[in-house]
Formats: sequence, C-alpha cells, structure tokens
Amino acid sequence: MAQKPSIPKGTRDFSPLEMMRRQYIFDTIRGVFRLYGFAPLETPSMENLSTLLGKYGDEGDKLLFKILNSGDYAAKLNDDEVRQASKICEKGLRYDLTVPFARYVVQHQGELTFPFKRYQIQPVWRADRPQKGRYREFYQCDVDVIGTRSLLCEVELIEIVERVFRALGIRVALKMNNRKILYGIAEAIGHADKMMDITIAIDKLEKIGLDNVKAELLERGLEQAAVEKLQPILELSGDNAQKLAKLKEVLSASETGLKGIEEMETVFRYLEQQKLDLNVELDLSLARGLNYYTGAIFEVKALDFAIGSICGGGRYDDLTGIFGMPNTSGVGISFGADRIYDVMTGLELFPEDVNCSTKVLFVNLGEKEEAASMSLLKDLRDAGIAAEIYPESSKMKKQMEYANRRSIPYVVIIGSQELEEGVATVKDMRSGDQQKVAFAEIVKSIK
Amino acid sequence: MAQKPSIPKGTRDFSPLEMMRRQYIFDTIRGVFRLYGFAPLETPSMENLSTLLGKYGDEGDKLLFKILNSGDYAAKLNDDEVRQASKICEKGLRYDLTVPFARYVVQHQGELTFPFKRYQIQPVWRADRPQKGRYREFYQCDVDVIGTRSLLCEVELIEIVERVFRALGIRVALKMNNRKILYGIAEAIGHADKMMDITIAIDKLEKIGLDNVKAELLERGLEQAAVEKLQPILELSGDNAQKLAKLKEVLSASETGLKGIEEMETVFRYLEQQKLDLNVELDLSLARGLNYYTGAIFEVKALDFAIGSICGGGRYDDLTGIFGMPNTSGVGISFGADRIYDVMTGLELFPEDVNCSTKVLFVNLGEKEEAASMSLLKDLRDAGIAAEIYPESSKMKKQMEYANRRSIPYVVIIGSQELEEGVATVKDMRSGDQQKVAFAEIVKSIK
Repeated sequence: MAQKPSIPKGTRDFSPLEMMRRQYIFDTIRGVFRLYGFAPLETPSMENLSTLLGKYGDEGDKLLFKILNSGDYAAKLNDDEVRQASKICEKGLRYDLTVPFARYVVQHQGELTFPFKRYQIQPVWRADRPQKGRYREFYQCDVDVIGTRSLLCEVELIEIVERVFRALGIRVALKMNNRKILYGIAEAIGHADKMMDITIAIDKLEKIGLDNVKAELLERGLEQAAVEKLQPILELSGDNAQKLAKLKEVLSASETGLKGIEEMETVFRYLEQQKLDLNVELDLSLARGLNYYTGAIFEVKALDFAIGSICGGGRYDDLTGIFGMPNTSGVGISFGADRIYDVMTGLELFPEDVNCSTKVLFVNLGEKEEAASMSLLKDLRDAGIAAEIYPESSKMKKQMEYANRRSIPYVVIIGSQELEEGVATVKDMRSGDQQKVAFAEIVKSIK
Repeated sequence: MAQKPSIPKGTRDFSPLEMMRRQYIFDTIRGVFRLYGFAPLETPSMENLSTLLGKYGDEGDKLLFKILNSGDYAAKLNDDEVRQASKICEKGLRYDLTVPFARYVVQHQGELTFPFKRYQIQPVWRADRPQKGRYREFYQCDVDVIGTRSLLCEVELIEIVERVFRALGIRVALKMNNRKILYGIAEAIGHADKMMDITIAIDKLEKIGLDNVKAELLERGLEQAAVEKLQPILELSGDNAQKLAKLKEVLSASETGLKGIEEMETVFRYLEQQKLDLNVELDLSLARGLNYYTGAIFEVKALDFAIGSICGGGRYDDLTGIFGMPNTSGVGISFGADRIYDVMTGLELFPEDVNCSTKVLFVNLGEKEEAASMSLLKDLRDAGIAAEIYPESSKMKKQMEYANRRSIPYVVIIGSQELEEGVATVKDMRSGDQQKVAFAEIVKSIK
C-alpha cells in the first residue's frame, strides 16, 4: 500500500507560508477591484469542449486538458473512434478566464445589468511543457467591464493598476498602445491586409531587435519599401504628446489610425487630470499576441526586478461574437499572480505579519495552567487576535521551538507561580524581551 | 460559429450576487480558522490517479474525474489498452481535501512543524449523478490538526463550530460520538469483528428507523440475540452525563469502550469550563460513514432549517498510513459551504451590505461634471469606499436604473448647478431621501 507520494508535473502544493503570501496578493488585488465597483464572478472549472475548442488557435487546442467521459467511455465506440479525443471527452478544464467570461455574458445576457463589471480570480490549466515559471495550473486575476465603449473604463483600469502595485509596494511602468494605431500604420505603409503580421512582428521588437523584426516582415511578404516606411514609426521618440503629434502626421490618411490617436489622447488627458502617480508610456512596439484586441492595449512591468509583464490587457469589440452576441465592446486587464509573487519574494516586499498565521502562543504547562490559558485565549480571539495553545504539556524547549518555527511573535507563559499571582509572562520572540502582564491586561498588551 | 452556450451538467456559474454571498461565508469561516492559528494550504486540482484510486471505495473510484493524457494518448496502445482508463489517464481531479492533505503531509513531513494545523478551502469534483443540492463541482472547507492526540484539539474544533455559526447567525446543534464507544458496543454484544457493519447500520438510524436498522443488522450476519442487546443502547436517554454513566456500566468489559467514554468526558469537561454557548449532545446513533475515523466524530445541523448536516468530521489515527507514514493521529472538520448557503438564503440571514458591490454611484452628466466626480471618486476610494461613475452620460433614468438593479445604496448627482455651488446631491436609494452635501464633506457623509 505504501508508495512515495508525488504530484503531477507542472502542478504545485502551496505551503502555509506561500499561501499566506499568495492570499495577501489576492486580497490586495480583490480589495482594489471592489473599490472600483467590480463584482466577483466564478465559472466552473470544466467547460464543454465545444465552448473551448477553436478559441485559442491550433496550439491552444492542443494544450487543453480534456476530461474523460464518466462511466464506460468506450462502450459504444469502434476501435477508430476510441482513438479520437472528441469521442471520449466532452469536457475540458478552462484555459483562461476570458472565454468562460464571454460564454457567461452571452448565456446570461438577459439577467445582467450592462455595463457589466466583473472580476474573476480562479485557476486555469494548460498542458504546456512545464518549466521555470511556467505551470500547468496557475491563477489568473481578471477584471473586465463589458457593454460600453467609454474610455473612462480604460482610465479606471489604469488607476486600478496604480493602486494595486502601490499597495503591494512594487514600482512599475505601464506601457500602452492602441490596436487602431497599429492598423493605421499598416494602412499607411500600404498593407492594411497584413495588420496582424505586422503586429506580431512588432510584438517581438524588444525580444529580437529591429533587424530581426525587419527580416521577419520581409518573410511575411512585405516588400523592402514598406518595411523601410515602417522604420521611423518604430523609432519614434519623445514624450507621449510628441509621439502622438508625430503619428498624427504620418497617419493623417488613416481614419482608423486617427481614431486610435484620439482615444489615446483622451485617456492621457484623464490621467493627467487625475494626477496619477504612474509612468504611462505610449509604446508602439507593444502589440500583444491576442487577436481579439481592437483598441487600447496595456502591459505592466516591474521596474526593479527582471521578469516578463506582470499585468496586461486591452479593449475588445467582439469577444462575445463567437457565442452569438455581436457588437459588445469591453475592456479588461489580468494580473499575473505567480509573477507578482516572484517579484515580491525577490524584492522582499511581503510585510512581516503576512509570514505568520498565529500571533500568540500559550505555552502548555499542565492542566490547571491550561484552564487559565483557555480563558485568556477566548478573550484574545474575541478581540480578533489569532492565538493558540500548544496542545500538549510537552517540554518547554519543544514548545518554544514550535513558536520559532511557525514565526509566532508572542509567547505567553503561565506557570504555577504566574497562576497564583494572576499574571502571565509575555515574551516577544523577536526581541527576546519578557514582561509580566496581569491577566486582565493581556489583550491590551498584545494589541 | 454561433452556438447556444451552456455549461456541463452538475456545474454552476456563480453570479456576482451569489459570489458576494459565498465570499461572505468563506471569509467568515476563514477568519475563524485564522483566529485559532490554522494556516492555509492548497494542493493541486489534479493528483496522480495512483494517489486517488482505492481511497474512496469502489464507488468512489468510479466517481473520479479522470484527465486524458496530453499529446497522442492512444499512440502506443493496442485496441484493448485504449479501452482501459488506466492506460490513457494518469491524473484525476481531487475528490475531497482529505486524501490530498494526507499525501501532502507525508510528502513534506520533513519540512512541517507538528502539530501541523492547516485549513484548506478548495473545490472538489465528483462524477455523481447531479440532483438538487448535489453538484459535480463544489467547495469544501476543511480544518485539521495532525500530529497530536490532545483532546484540546477536539475542544478547539467545537469552539470553531460555535464561532462560525454564531458569526453567520445560524442556530445549530452539534452531535458528537466516539468510534471507540461504537467499538465497545460491538464488543459488548459479542461482535467486535462486525464493528463497521454495526456502525454503518447505526448511521442510518435517523433515516430508516429502528426496525429497518435491526433488519439490516440481521442481514449483515448478527444473530437476533445480539441485535436485541443493541436496542437499549440505541434507546439510551437523558443528558450527556447520564448517558455516559449508563454506558460505563454496559461497556465495563471493553477497554476501548471505556477509553472512548473517558475521551468524551474530558471534552465535555473542557466545554463546560469554556462556557460555550452551543448545544453539544452525545448521540450514539451518530456513526458517519468514513471508515478512517477512530475517535471523536462530529456532526452539526441547523436548528431552523431542514437540510442534512452542514458540518462534520472526526479524529483519525492513521490517515497518513496509506502513504507510508503510520501512527500519526489527527482530527478535523469540514464545513459544507453549499448547504450553509442554502440555509442562509432560506432564513434570509445575509447582511444587507453583502448584496451590493458598489456603495456609491456618481451619475454622469457630461464632461465637466465628470471631472469633478472623478476627483471625488478618488477621495472615496482612498477612504476605502467602493464607488464608481456611470461610464457614459446617458439619460438619467437609465443611470438610476443601473443603480437600482445593482442595489447601489447611494447615488451622487453633480449637475451644472451643483458644480457651480461646489455641492453634490446625495440620494439614499433605499429611503429616497436627498440632501445637498459640500464636495469636501462627501466622504464623511457617506461613511
């Protein structure tokens, strides 16, 4: 019966310390989402495969975890059929929170109040090859508003970014672009049809450099002249206003491009008015891979820690179209909890009290002392202070070790002498200081 | 492309209102767990099937959701093999939180501090036939301490029960029994070998009645005389002390039985000392089906709402044995969030403010007014008040409807006149009252 237990590759156990830190991140993010009036939503872990397939490209389809039909899955199938996943699996684990959100909005459109503001913090699953920082089960923290084209939504999302990372203590820069501008650029160089190719190539600018991007564009069928036309746009410099002014000239013939510029100007104007303490930069090389974006796109990076983007998103005009509800514009962003965790660990940003679950441990010195401790424990807990008693009257050393290993900051000792005097010895485990405190004063003293 | 979207049977979407109520339950439970020094733990949604199989009986094995191996699952299999789930699936979704917890403790025993106190709030999946109140995906809220036999743990768990349901406003009764007493009873009627049969039969006492239980016991191989001996024990009456005194006589020849009685007496003594405001009753008909319990067993029912047990658990002496770590005693309970939700909905126990995500809506009356609103919104959010502005300057009626449908209690109106005067009209949506409030006073006024 005995076996060396393990977990599937690419999955993780989260220890109490990791969990307390993760909850701190989730609670912070959730708290900010709530401040902005977003309400929680949860969808099932499993969706019908018909909901998921074809939404993430061929590569994505392969990465879906499929769930074997219950009962005798092979009963009525011939030998060929039983070799087809589509015959033996009807359900799959969700791959992201966006498609289930779109499915939900379409399915429940009659009950929802639009604009519909929701956040969703749930795990997603991908059968990707596991590697450092890439897992087969990980959480996404999405926030979206759907059913309005108002640019105030973009502004609020940027405010949310600022507020979340300020609360977490992570210095960040937000890069922003607009798909309409990217379309305008494609139009301006005479290749409106190749907007996605150009976008995908531009997306790699930071990773592979200007020359390689140019080479890739040539490969994708752009002629040399068009690629040359693109270069000055990629090398645009100056502040946001200067870049936009320059772009306005270059894209003067593209109605869509001008619309994109106008949207950016509006957002920047709001941000200035709100005096947001956040570096928001127009970055034309920002494209983001997801092809449902149609307006603003965002990406957030940590300034003091080298890691990919820790938050990103954008506006989409037809996410729900795939489920039969066209022309419903929305905008959203997603926080990458795992990377945020890595940044905070790397920069040691977790507050001290996030690392301990118990604030006060009562040492257990026997039955009579226990009784006094139990009554004081009740008072502490009534006051909202996490406290516990060591469950056995073991050796003092063992109990103190327990407190140390669990990072419990205060230990209360009630021995026979203390019991007689009605006082407890309260030890500060960080400083080593000890003091006698009357039973009636313990709650106040710990607080 | 368009398709009528739906979700797999037995699964659920949780709307914002449902989610806010569910989060209220989870947050309450989690808050109490924390007060008692329990730390959070999470394990992966998928476990190796070798971890899960054989732990829940044959019936349980059938109810596991299995995950199809990624890539070409059928590639190297012959036609027979591809019809065997064990060949095409290595992983399954967790069926409960107990087995993954045991697996975690064994796998990480070297890193853990014992007694190890953890709570775990995560979904589990069962391929059960869906029916009213039974889902294929549902949450469990487990709290366990492992690595000590101290009965203080039982007492703390009972305190947790009392505190959780007091916080939620649900009046409950806790029934308690002890497997050692049940063993003692089996011994006393001369059938120590049939303890599980007797236990399972007794478990059905409330459901099927005394006569049917007796019939079932005869079926399970007990002779009439033994069944007759059992009857007075099942009909035991009086308060806990009276029942225990009577039992002590009947079980005087069973060492295990007497140990169980002593354990119960100890727990009751602590509870009395703690003056717990909770009805805790010794109920010999309480057996609970799970066969890993070896000591105390608990079950909690709501007093004012007819539904099964909403919380239950017990002590186990060898949960981790199946993974090669024997003799590690623990005790835990599990809260049934779905049933608690049903009780609270049925009795209308959710506090009013749990039903709204936004406290203040600013009506949007145009660009200039918007600017003033945005600045006030910032102040409200800085003060921790969830607030939003309607993103478009739509008709007043539409915006008020939005506030109503989302149960937003306060609406702030800033029109051109208000803007000039530096005051806002604050409308209490519940009473209909309106009053003018100076911009600088809005935060205070809403608070």
